[in-house]
Amino acid sequence: MEKSPPALLLFANTQSSSDMLYFGRVDVHDPFIAMGIRGKKITVQSALEFSRVKKNGAFDTVLSREKCLDQAKAIYGAKVGIAEMIATLAKAYKQHAFRIPSDFPAALYVKLTSLGLKLVFAEGDLFPEREIKSDWEVGCIREGNRLCTVGYITAEKILRAAKIKGRHLIYQGKPLTSETLRFQLETAIREQGGNPQDSIVAGGDQACDPHERGSGPLHAHELIIIDIFPRVIKTGYFGDMTRTYLKGRPREVQRRMVATVREAQKRATKMIRAEVDGRVVHATVNECFADAGYETKHGKNGSVGFFHGTGHGLGLAVHEAGRMSGVVPYPLKNGSVLTVEPGLYYPGLGGCRWEDVVQVTATGTRPLSKHPYNWEIR
Amino acid sequence: MEKSPPALLLFANTQSSSDMLYFGRVDVHDPFIAMGIRGKKITVQSALEFSRVKKNGAFDTVLSREKCLDQAKAIYGAKVGIAEMIATLAKAYKQHAFRIPSDFPAALYVKLTSLGLKLVFAEGDLFPEREIKSDWEVGCIREGNRLCTVGYITAEKILRAAKIKGRHLIYQGKPLTSETLRFQLETAIREQGGNPQDSIVAGGDQACDPHERGSGPLHAHELIIIDIFPRVIKTGYFGDMTRTYLKGRPREVQRRMVATVREAQKRATKMIRAEVDGRVVHATVNECFADAGYETKHGKNGSVGFFHGTGHGLGLAVHEAGRMSGVVPYPLKNGSVLTVEPGLYYPGLGGCRWEDVVQVTATGTRPLSKHPYNWEIR
Repeated sequence: MEKSPPALLLFANTQSSSDMLYFGRVDVHDPFIAMGIRGKKITVQSALEFSRVKKNGAFDTVLSREKCLDQAKAIYGAKVGIAEMIATLAKAYKQHAFRIPSDFPAALYVKLTSLGLKLVFAEGDLFPEREIKSDWEVGCIREGNRLCTVGYITAEKILRAAKIKGRHLIYQGKPLTSETLRFQLETAIREQGGNPQDSIVAGGDQACDPHERGSGPLHAHELIIIDIFPRVIKTGYFGDMTRTYLKGRPREVQRRMVATVREAQKRATKMIRAEVDGRVVHATVNECFADAGYETKHGKNGSVGFFHGTGHGLGLAVHEAGRMSGVVPYPLKNGSVLTVEPGLYYPGLGGCRWEDVVQVTATGTRPLSKHPYNWEIR
Repeated sequence: MEKSPPALLLFANTQSSSDMLYFGRVDVHDPFIAMGIRGKKITVQSALEFSRVKKNGAFDTVLSREKCLDQAKAIYGAKVGIAEMIATLAKAYKQHAFRIPSDFPAALYVKLTSLGLKLVFAEGDLFPEREIKSDWEVGCIREGNRLCTVGYITAEKILRAAKIKGRHLIYQGKPLTSETLRFQLETAIREQGGNPQDSIVAGGDQACDPHERGSGPLHAHELIIIDIFPRVIKTGYFGDMTRTYLKGRPREVQRRMVATVREAQKRATKMIRAEVDGRVVHATVNECFADAGYETKHGKNGSVGFFHGTGHGLGLAVHEAGRMSGVVPYPLKNGSVLTVEPGLYYPGLGGCRWEDVVQVTATGTRPLSKHPYNWEIR
């Protein structure tokens, strides 16, 4: 393996690249150049973004894109683009080698290489330090999860107020839908500074597709999964929690499934500490479900049982470094932040998932989310 | 230039890649494999997404990621990843060459090349046909712009209701802020099926950074720029409009600037038709401003005057193929959809931008947005 060069090169927007947001700490919607050279952060911005990025970003130097373009033209002629601008900057800063992320744009990679730059992919993550959260970052994630609970409180209020008519739920004179419940809980979260996207409010069999957002009327006596992962607008960090509800009277099979998933979540959480293999935590959840008689099966049209990971890293991205799944061994890192989210899904019976967030410590976990598990609403 | 191979390869999520959304017509948050082979659309999905993508997506074949992984292991051994899965699929489908987008992940590009695949970058856009909008797409964009007007109606109602106390605006007993106005207008848009993100509500000098979202109290007698670009949740298409307001009494200099920008927008729109060079339209706006005495200057801390493009393509992305700017010649295409958005920005005086959306026709334009330009609110 080649030694990583000390200089860093990024070309991305902050919506697609949480690495860019981590590096520059300012939102920019169109892709832009950023470099890390001798401990300094340098970026190139068009007139449109220049002064905003200069004011709000973490960059030591903000260069004018228009000027950089002119400088590149002086060297490479009239037809220049991003690659020539980067090569010109590299020359100015006396760098010929850069570390780049694995998702660096391939066409730009090829062009820069042909211009004589040496680009080396970062081994694993570009910023491995991102996985270990500072106290400030932990506070931001806690705030994200507090916003989740704002959503649950709103959802519970509505479910409590809804009236049961046969299988139907009536709220303010109309059938209660996934859309209404999502709109109400997301609005409550936005009012407090969060940006929830694609929150899942899925009832009955819809919830058996774990990433189905849910649509149409919600029904009485059926499990309803609500998975919320809002971004804290001020800081960019995410919360991520899931609660399961049932309005009406649960059947014994539903009760048992819900209790089993909660038990699996507790057992998984108890196993987590620094250096434990995430795959072993995941295996425990599998075992827990198998012991209780819940089989996982993969069919032609989908899977039933438990068929997603037990948890993932959380921070400036909803899914980031850190994992507990069956796929690869993954030693959990001290100070990292993980979701713990076992679930069971059986069409006919419905789906159940409980998701909370913990920080991994040397001896166990520190909870970063808090909300009751009162799932039965009469 | 090498001839593009007929088969297509994508690896992206639909949030970062509107090409992927265009191709698959279903939202998936984590990056996934998609191929176009002999007119058929093929994708690989984990158990977590499988049945949802199968139900809702435009793919002819949805393969199980878990099974593909096993097949790759049978060929390449235990340590396989995305690259080996793609190589295995390529073999199964008897393809050794693929067309890829320029933003294909570089590390995967290098790995696939080392596995013997031939990857050729698409010349220009991956789907050039995306630039020409079908009647259905035009309807989706119209709906996006209708959602913008829902936002403007809400904003105007609040500005009308606000009371002037000296420089301050008081709404429902509290100072009216960018945040309040943004929350209210975005909520109104969400209620009707839109997803507005980062809407700009910027008053006074804040508006002089065209991408500053705006924060804190809004003031009387100052220009306020409101730029809204909501996504229609059902279809994924965007609207994009900008209106400028002033609550109170405008000064003559403000009046003149607002009228000049509107005049520039009208003149630009009149010039647009198929085959006209977008750069020429942009030059007309520059001329219009220069003739009226509005200078554009680039300083050490930012620019003043008019320093962004006149317009960009709009569709499944807020910024997509199609442009009218000073940077490159760009023949406008019949059936393409463009924003027309001149603006002027002078700290001390404030900012003004008018933005509407048109479809380019052989003889002129077809308006896709509609809302009055009544900017003075007493």
